[in-house]
Amino acid sequence: MTVKSAGTDESLIRPGEVRVPLPSAFDASLYYIGRIRTPWKSRAECPRNARASRESGVVCTVEVDPCWQQGLPGVEGFSHLILLYWMDRARRDLMVQTPKNQPAGRPTFALRSPVRPNPIALAVVELRGVEGNRLSVVGVDCLDNTPLLDIKPYFSSTDSIPDARIPDWHASRKG
Amino acid sequence: MTVKSAGTDESLIRPGEVRVPLPSAFDASLYYIGRIRTPWKSRAECPRNARASRESGVVCTVEVDPCWQQGLPGVEGFSHLILLYWMDRARRDLMVQTPKNQPAGRPTFALRSPVRPNPIALAVVELRGVEGNRLSVVGVDCLDNTPLLDIKPYFSSTDSIPDARIPDWHASRKG
Repeated sequence: MTVKSAGTDESLIRPGEVRVPLPSAFDASLYYIGRIRTPWKSRAECPRNARASRESGVVCTVEVDPCWQQGLPGVEGFSHLILLYWMDRARRDLMVQTPKNQPAGRPTFALRSPVRPNPIALAVVELRGVEGNRLSVVGVDCLDNTPLLDIKPYFSSTDSIPDARIPDWHASRKG
Repeated sequence: MTVKSAGTDESLIRPGEVRVPLPSAFDASLYYIGRIRTPWKSRAECPRNARASRESGVVCTVEVDPCWQQGLPGVEGFSHLILLYWMDRARRDLMVQTPKNQPAGRPTFALRSPVRPNPIALAVVELRGVEGNRLSVVGVDCLDNTPLLDIKPYFSSTDSIPDARIPDWHASRKG
């Protein structure tokens, strides 16, 4: 198996960012089970985050590879799904990063940035419809053709925490 | 890289289950970035699901490998986190499965079962404390020593859907 390593060029690090050496071997492997089709062909076009995407109301399409299609019946009964997808262009070695519009470097696990040791992104999406192997959803913010890893049903009983608190530095950034 | 393939023994399939051939190659690879330490040493001991775990109030420990520890400062400002972890004992080839206490086979993507093409589990956990590379959390339901893949901050603005609907068959099962 060939594994492309995402860019680790020191020169691409912004002030305040910290990189670490990556382990010499991987521990487990993934199948791409489909693709997420969106109208966005470059990062500049993508919505700023999942919330902006949801508020835009733009409907995107999840195309599940036909070999997994038998796993889909039943999802249409859920109003919301969790999508996991693979940010294949993200570097994996930054432990402190300086996102755009952030004055200071922020540790990776306090951010939802795609840059992380395992660049798995997560979006809670509203399901608008299912036709064969295609789901229409609202709420993803990724580039067109992003690889899909998983589809899970969303349960408010375990997944919804309306009063979850976030730190001031993040609240002011989002606002 | 050696990849252990999870069991695909036809004889272990329950009535109503459907398996599919797995792709011949993987598409991407993962690092285990730590371990989740829980009191549960066998599946029989594990809480039935994340909700039961949260209601039990049992505090578990997330141990992040020291090489990633610089990514942690700042997570203590969040009341809740999303953990992604790897269900390394789960088979990956069932598209219809018959969970315990379910009368009929159910398609995989309508379930939160660990059995799926990419056995990534997700839990929304309450963060009780951080000490060095160890997080104390409430809300995981996995076996002791489960490999950790990611830690993300939880944002109610994008992750909380209090009125999300689920189908009757699932509601009656959970109840």
